Amino acid sequence: MIKVGIVGATGYTGAELVRILHGHPKAEITVLTSRSHEGENIEDIYPNLRGCVDHSLSGQDLDKVISISDVVFVALPHGLSVPIVKKALEAGKKVIDLGADFRLKDAEVYKQWYGLEHGAPNLLENAAYGLPELKLEEIKDAQIVANPGCFPTGVILGLAPLLDKGIIDPKSIIADSKTGLSGAGKTPTDINIFVECNENAAPYAVNGHRHRPEMEQELGWVSGDEVQINFIPHLVPITRGILSTIYGGLTSSVEAGQVREIYEDYYSGAPFIRLLDENIWPHTRWVKGSNFCDLNFFIDKGRNRITIVSAIDNLFKGASGQAVQNMNIMFGLPQDMGLKFPGLCP
Amino acid sequence: MIKVGIVGATGYTGAELVRILHGHPKAEITVLTSRSHEGENIEDIYPNLRGCVDHSLSGQDLDKVISISDVVFVALPHGLSVPIVKKALEAGKKVIDLGADFRLKDAEVYKQWYGLEHGAPNLLENAAYGLPELKLEEIKDAQIVANPGCFPTGVILGLAPLLDKGIIDPKSIIADSKTGLSGAGKTPTDINIFVECNENAAPYAVNGHRHRPEMEQELGWVSGDEVQINFIPHLVPITRGILSTIYGGLTSSVEAGQVREIYEDYYSGAPFIRLLDENIWPHTRWVKGSNFCDLNFFIDKGRNRITIVSAIDNLFKGASGQAVQNMNIMFGLPQDMGLKFPGLCP
Amino acid sequence: MIKVGIVGATGYTGAELVRILHGHPKAEITVLTSRSHEGENIEDIYPNLRGCVDHSLSGQDLDKVISISDVVFVALPHGLSVPIVKKALEAGKKVIDLGADFRLKDAEVYKQWYGLEHGAPNLLENAAYGLPELKLEEIKDAQIVANPGCFPTGVILGLAPLLDKGIIDPKSIIADSKTGLSGAGKTPTDINIFVECNENAAPYAVNGHRHRPEMEQELGWVSGDEVQINFIPHLVPITRGILSTIYGGLTSSVEAGQVREIYEDYYSGAPFIRLLDENIWPHTRWVKGSNFCDLNFFIDKGRNRITIVSAIDNLFKGASGQAVQNMNIMFGLPQDMGLKFPGLCP
Amino acid sequence: MIKVGIVGATGYTGAELVRILHGHPKAEITVLTSRSHEGENIEDIYPNLRGCVDHSLSGQDLDKVISISDVVFVALPHGLSVPIVKKALEAGKKVIDLGADFRLKDAEVYKQWYGLEHGAPNLLENAAYGLPELKLEEIKDAQIVANPGCFPTGVILGLAPLLDKGIIDPKSIIADSKTGLSGAGKTPTDINIFVECNENAAPYAVNGHRHRPEMEQELGWVSGDEVQINFIPHLVPITRGILSTIYGGLTSSVEAGQVREIYEDYYSGAPFIRLLDENIWPHTRWVKGSNFCDLNFFIDKGRNRITIVSAIDNLFKGASGQAVQNMNIMFGLPQDMGLKFPGLCP
Repeated sequence: MIKVGIVGATGYTGAELVRILHGHPKAEITVLTSRSHEGENIEDIYPNLRGCVDHSLSGQDLDKVISISDVVFVALPHGLSVPIVKKALEAGKKVIDLGADFRLKDAEVYKQWYGLEHGAPNLLENAAYGLPELKLEEIKDAQIVANPGCFPTGVILGLAPLLDKGIIDPKSIIADSKTGLSGAGKTPTDINIFVECNENAAPYAVNGHRHRPEMEQELGWVSGDEVQINFIPHLVPITRGILSTIYGGLTSSVEAGQVREIYEDYYSGAPFIRLLDENIWPHTRWVKGSNFCDLNFFIDKGRNRITIVSAIDNLFKGASGQAVQNMNIMFGLPQDMGLKFPGLCP
Repeated sequence: MIKVGIVGATGYTGAELVRILHGHPKAEITVLTSRSHEGENIEDIYPNLRGCVDHSLSGQDLDKVISISDVVFVALPHGLSVPIVKKALEAGKKVIDLGADFRLKDAEVYKQWYGLEHGAPNLLENAAYGLPELKLEEIKDAQIVANPGCFPTGVILGLAPLLDKGIIDPKSIIADSKTGLSGAGKTPTDINIFVECNENAAPYAVNGHRHRPEMEQELGWVSGDEVQINFIPHLVPITRGILSTIYGGLTSSVEAGQVREIYEDYYSGAPFIRLLDENIWPHTRWVKGSNFCDLNFFIDKGRNRITIVSAIDNLFKGASGQAVQNMNIMFGLPQDMGLKFPGLCP
Repeated sequence: MIKVGIVGATGYTGAELVRILHGHPKAEITVLTSRSHEGENIEDIYPNLRGCVDHSLSGQDLDKVISISDVVFVALPHGLSVPIVKKALEAGKKVIDLGADFRLKDAEVYKQWYGLEHGAPNLLENAAYGLPELKLEEIKDAQIVANPGCFPTGVILGLAPLLDKGIIDPKSIIADSKTGLSGAGKTPTDINIFVECNENAAPYAVNGHRHRPEMEQELGWVSGDEVQINFIPHLVPITRGILSTIYGGLTSSVEAGQVREIYEDYYSGAPFIRLLDENIWPHTRWVKGSNFCDLNFFIDKGRNRITIVSAIDNLFKGASGQAVQNMNIMFGLPQDMGLKFPGLCP
Repeated sequence: MIKVGIVGATGYTGAELVRILHGHPKAEITVLTSRSHEGENIEDIYPNLRGCVDHSLSGQDLDKVISISDVVFVALPHGLSVPIVKKALEAGKKVIDLGADFRLKDAEVYKQWYGLEHGAPNLLENAAYGLPELKLEEIKDAQIVANPGCFPTGVILGLAPLLDKGIIDPKSIIADSKTGLSGAGKTPTDINIFVECNENAAPYAVNGHRHRPEMEQELGWVSGDEVQINFIPHLVPITRGILSTIYGGLTSSVEAGQVREIYEDYYSGAPFIRLLDENIWPHTRWVKGSNFCDLNFFIDKGRNRITIVSAIDNLFKGASGQAVQNMNIMFGLPQDMGLKFPGLCP
């Protein structure tokens, strides 16, 4: 059994890790930490876990956490994972960071978007970007995995095969995402209370969201060229789910059949990509509570543009499920172990 | 492996059976039927199943269904299960009816509430009422199990221990239930469309709901006395979940500690009952996607009344999860096999 | 024109007052105060008001507020209204308190439920309880009106006619209310964020809610006898609306027609009570954005009990609309002036 | 008083007309028709209207309807308005069609998108496109007004000033709209029931929506050039509201201040356009229940693209409110009469 420690177990992604790992046949939780709930039991914070998971929450004695774990999941706000990652490396343990600290390869870009000096710029190159559909081999060998952001997961998975083949113009891309509120976290704010979110649709971060440079970095790597994206996220009143509608200019005339083949080839070994049948469009509720990413596309010949739609569960494939998929890969297990089940629908 | 047939696989409870059985280690689906979708694949009706369940839908050739199944789940509207149950009995197969046809022991009461002559009144006594927390032994030996209604499940589980001990007056009971819309089924009507349900709370069937005689029958059996319930269901804009707030007059002075013990004793071997800590009240979202029934109570000494609150997922413990729990029992498996995992929260 | 000041204009009830008064033909806002948003414009806090109301927010210079107002609405948390009420009285101005400080006539009961010594117990008798359907004459002559709580409004309106006639047992009453989240206010907390409220139904304050003594006080006054209520509020995922399902034991046999007449007589001059036709049950969405209280009832002869259902918009008839209705009465205007329009449905 | 007839009063837009006209100082309803509810009272279909509007529903005796009305609002599905429009013209009465039959100027385009031969192609030129912010003078003189579609209203209002000035490339436009379910109408279908819409976001009509040619026609008229739009509508789980996020390539370098001026000039006399302050983004809940269209924009200089966001209430500014605005204009009244109030927020 893989011994798992989770640092920051009481946020939504931490608790989702606990829930997913409860059903994993080869992993067991050895330690959960929480600054705000030290000494309490996780089942008192997340009563859905009662009768299944019974684990008290430790404070953050990192040395101990690392010593008793084979892998540490870090589910903390950005800026806090460097000390843990360093200690884990020294101890020869693996670490999967669900935060943003190891996603961007350029410490300057990190500083620009997150407002912080990076605490370990020399380690950035060591971290694999944990999107298994693109970086399987890197993840296998990595000691640090930077788990992707929720928006980048859906947007990159929609675009990568087409940028890889050069059929869309890398500077023409627009990604319009609609997200549920669990992505905004558990801390109460003026904008995540029920009354301010219910019966509403609205964009945010219109003048630039932190997940954009991450998309551009990874898609630039795929494309071999600079990629520019207009990315606008929107809040819609659902708990889980991100739907991304992505628009790109075609570089040449292609048929739907060719594009379908490009997707199928690119994702031939990927157990969680579902390319839907023609004219069936991704619905976030079809992936809710699952690790799937649903995809489809439409070619508008008259306008020479392709529309791609992707749907994921932001807490699952967009965070904790993907993190477990990465763990599987890092430990030589089938990547879908403990993860291959249908979403909760309805 | 237990070979399972599902008659009526494309309604919400049928599809939930498919989803739950996908994760069951000792059962495999052999046949799914659907009148309206014959020849299609279940994953086209429920795209959440894609990549997990790949099964085409047969028409209703009952003889064949029964011949290739060890157990048949019937997930049809009331009035339609008698022919299947008869054939299953003849063939020596087990049958679990998720509809209402075998719940009421008295064919006259059935007729009064469902408006139909019962097609096999002689079989009513043979059918075990499939609430394992009350009828474990009966279910073990039964060939026919009548899976309880969703409202009765939550209301009976809240009341049974107290009526068993005689501490509440059996004619004083009021059950005020709040249900999500999945209980209303998949057929579009004037009252289940989004716009008519969203931003709304309203009662229905105030002058008498079909689930009341079922509650009164089973609780009468527990109590040994006639039980009378004022039962009022309400629609609230959620997909899954029933919260029942139950009010009863106390027959004598009791302390909270005693009542807690009564619950703990009555449900000592029951893996899906969670009596919450004092002052923690059931939330439907804590049981969503799980087979748990959460319970708690409050004694109002001044008013000599007890308030009991129960929460279930109507499609899971209130229907398909409970049906699988019954299957486990009927086949000598641990009753929680394939069912013991936390709900999807958030 | 009546000159109106609003103290605490940026909470939900304050902003709702602004919105309602914008359409009132005989009132004009002269001053809005806000501690947290002093100097800002109300339209920046509530952008729905843009283009209609353009008013900057003052700090709380109470003397000035009172000097330029004919009536002051106080929309502050409990415990804060006494100084304003005193100053208003001294200045000979009218005051309508939307908070709880002047609802309970007994300062001891106030202390018990609100945890505070009342700052002006001698004024309690001067304050009219502002439920116009019961206290029209008192309100006409009052200088202080204590605007009722949201739950008491719906529960009292459902029960008053029947307790007045003595047809229900005053110690048998159970009130099960379902409320939207706007009643929980605008301050972010662990329990009012979207993710914790969406897809959920749950009770709260099961062991005693502050609105219960208010109901018991006023209904005791109607009944002439002590009234005892088991009152359990529940949160359901809607923004506006309270549905109360009220259960009472009948003291004698009555027919539906008699009860209907009792309601019609009691509310003969009341413009905002709508007794629905037989078997049509109140829906919160039918009263959303309106000052109506919808009512209906069902007599269960076998159980000798009556079920009464009432629906209001908690911010409107349950708070700000009722406050404007009170203002109309205090200034000798028709009580429905500026208030008689249909709710926003769908 | 203007005498108003409404043909098709029981759909959502018909009922919204009734609700709005109830508050209009210069209009009175003389006749409401309904095929499905002839003989019933509108307040029985829309109980929110009780106590305010008391009007029985006639069958569709068009001659009578027209003879007793100064203006007829037609709120029927497309394909049904031609006979009414013809009769109204003959009788010298004004008619406002909320359906699609008179929006497209080219009968061939109509046939292509709606699948019907147009019944009166010769009248198409007579019909004014009822978007007052663009066509005020035409509407003043028109006897037939084609009320715009809900999506075109929001998208055209966002784009018109910029296309008028030529600062965006007319072939570069993408409009990504998010709509509530009331736009899907009141007839129950497999896709508008609560369970299928709740907790979901999904696109539809990806391969071409009927509102696209309407946008292209009107914006082509504004631009003086052919306009091409990729328009993708999405369903989000709200009742009312359309948020449109619109992306366009800039033809030259412009500053935010210039663009702001362009909007202010273009909409200088328009009472329902609210250009929000910098960095404040339209929220559908700020316009819910109102006739406002909220707008804002962001220039991404690096990508040489502008993002425009508009929000309307699809039943109000996107249908019935705009229809009443058109009525006001046709009868020489101030265009905002009976319409200038804030939305219901929260």
